[in-house]
Amino acid sequence: MKTREIAIGIDMGGTNTVFGFVNKRGKCIAQGSIRTEQYEELNDFLKALWERIEEVRLEIKQNIHIKGIGIGAPNGNFYNGTIEFAPNLNWKGIIPFAKEFKKLSKLPVVLTNDANAAALGEMMYGGAKRMKDFILITLGTGLGSGIVVNGNVLYGHDGFAGEIGHVIVVPNGRKCGCGRKGCLETYASATGIKRTALNLLSESDEESMLSGHTIRSLSAKMIDAAAIKGDKVAMDSFEYTGKILGEALANSIAYTSPKAIFLFGGLAQAGKLIFKPTKKYMERSLLHVYKKKVKLLPSSLEGAHAAVLGASALVWKEIS
Amino acid sequence: MKTREIAIGIDMGGTNTVFGFVNKRGKCIAQGSIRTEQYEELNDFLKALWERIEEVRLEIKQNIHIKGIGIGAPNGNFYNGTIEFAPNLNWKGIIPFAKEFKKLSKLPVVLTNDANAAALGEMMYGGAKRMKDFILITLGTGLGSGIVVNGNVLYGHDGFAGEIGHVIVVPNGRKCGCGRKGCLETYASATGIKRTALNLLSESDEESMLSGHTIRSLSAKMIDAAAIKGDKVAMDSFEYTGKILGEALANSIAYTSPKAIFLFGGLAQAGKLIFKPTKKYMERSLLHVYKKKVKLLPSSLEGAHAAVLGASALVWKEIS
Repeated sequence: MKTREIAIGIDMGGTNTVFGFVNKRGKCIAQGSIRTEQYEELNDFLKALWERIEEVRLEIKQNIHIKGIGIGAPNGNFYNGTIEFAPNLNWKGIIPFAKEFKKLSKLPVVLTNDANAAALGEMMYGGAKRMKDFILITLGTGLGSGIVVNGNVLYGHDGFAGEIGHVIVVPNGRKCGCGRKGCLETYASATGIKRTALNLLSESDEESMLSGHTIRSLSAKMIDAAAIKGDKVAMDSFEYTGKILGEALANSIAYTSPKAIFLFGGLAQAGKLIFKPTKKYMERSLLHVYKKKVKLLPSSLEGAHAAVLGASALVWKEIS
Repeated sequence: MKTREIAIGIDMGGTNTVFGFVNKRGKCIAQGSIRTEQYEELNDFLKALWERIEEVRLEIKQNIHIKGIGIGAPNGNFYNGTIEFAPNLNWKGIIPFAKEFKKLSKLPVVLTNDANAAALGEMMYGGAKRMKDFILITLGTGLGSGIVVNGNVLYGHDGFAGEIGHVIVVPNGRKCGCGRKGCLETYASATGIKRTALNLLSESDEESMLSGHTIRSLSAKMIDAAAIKGDKVAMDSFEYTGKILGEALANSIAYTSPKAIFLFGGLAQAGKLIFKPTKKYMERSLLHVYKKKVKLLPSSLEGAHAAVLGASALVWKEIS
């Protein structure tokens, strides 16, 4: 039996950590997960994760050679392999994650932030296959970004480049988890559109389907469902979100002049509800020289394995 | 006599075009200029420029081998060697400048925009010698930017990346020459600070030294001189300019995470009058992870040859 080269991709989230054994063509041949949040101690988490990976490995019926492990993590730093001050993880401060996991696994380990991993996945397996300059935006609880320049992820001098979610778009605007005000992600994200809907409800005197939900439970998905049924507040929430996002992306284009911008993650799955206003305001706000040149596209890596594929791409791209 | 390798650097401006014969260490061994604005026809300009270059070459008493010609031009495009829709030049539309000049000179010709050329100069001969990630901002009539990522100028998919001067910083703000409103360069540039001074004069009831000048003649230099003498409106004009610029640079850092930002050009020569407020507001606005990491520095290439040096650096960097 032929031995196949495999990369392990790990997508770390605050709640769950999902991993997969992925071949070079982006096929996930086995997968598993553990709950991130139940481990108070980093070492316990690392051990449990590696044990689970070894269990899944035993189920694989092919001869495989594992080339390395790629990890996409919140606040992950590519240069140091650290996770630094991630607000949604139990382990605080600067965690030498890649180094510790390398000791345990005896394999090469590379780590970057989740949005950079998604951008690498898009470039290796998705819609950015033939692109050297593009931006990928993840619209989840927050807004993450991976910027690709001349075929490489832009890491900057310290590994922390590409924080478009923390560009301030409204001076003295909404309070952000980062401690500042008016960051893009407080408007353009799943939580951002919820805040927008609440604000519009405060200003409107129209009936809205959204009013039946508790404020705590109100979600981007509910706003999506209501907008599809023609609810005005819900539709206006998408329009406003698209306006803020589109105007911000017009500025992004003035930095790196990408061929395309990909939207990835939960809110992007609202389809034309979010794409249409974003595209409209983006085009309207662009400097002449960029107009009608930059595509706004859905990520083609959506689905359960998307983030794992991205993390595995890190192995093929960065371990030589 | 030993033959020395030389690059010709050309700095094209709307009024004058200056060129120099520069060796690899950044020494300008001969120079000259012609008036750009007196040539209605592109071909007449090209011929006159090349004739002048040949005249100056004859005066050089060394054996030289010219490796190529590097040109920094407004709205210059590195990929195509074109100058596209430059508002301050007599020749409209898309001009295949590098191609035409190559025909005439029989030498390799590379062209980029003036701010990119300045960034290359800073990297080759100036304060960015050991840096792989930095941004150079030119504060002249407008605001230009050259972004260096991983040791290379960021050109983007079409050659037009790095237009930080046209990032919109004040929605519905000041009218910009580009046809839009609120671009950074309408605030942070020599013309921007003049507009700020006029605005502050409109709001203030204090006496100001600036009031003796005609509105047409009021310049950044006059505001500088008045601020040094303690004029309140002039000092406040620098404070406000620094605020807008500093806040914008904090956003720039969230894109490319540079090791330093260099300020170049007329307004940067106001020294701490502009550096102090810019630094203050930049630090104040930065996301935690970037704080106290990014240097704000004056370009070390100031002076008559700065732009020519930058243009010549293009030859060493891009012609192999």
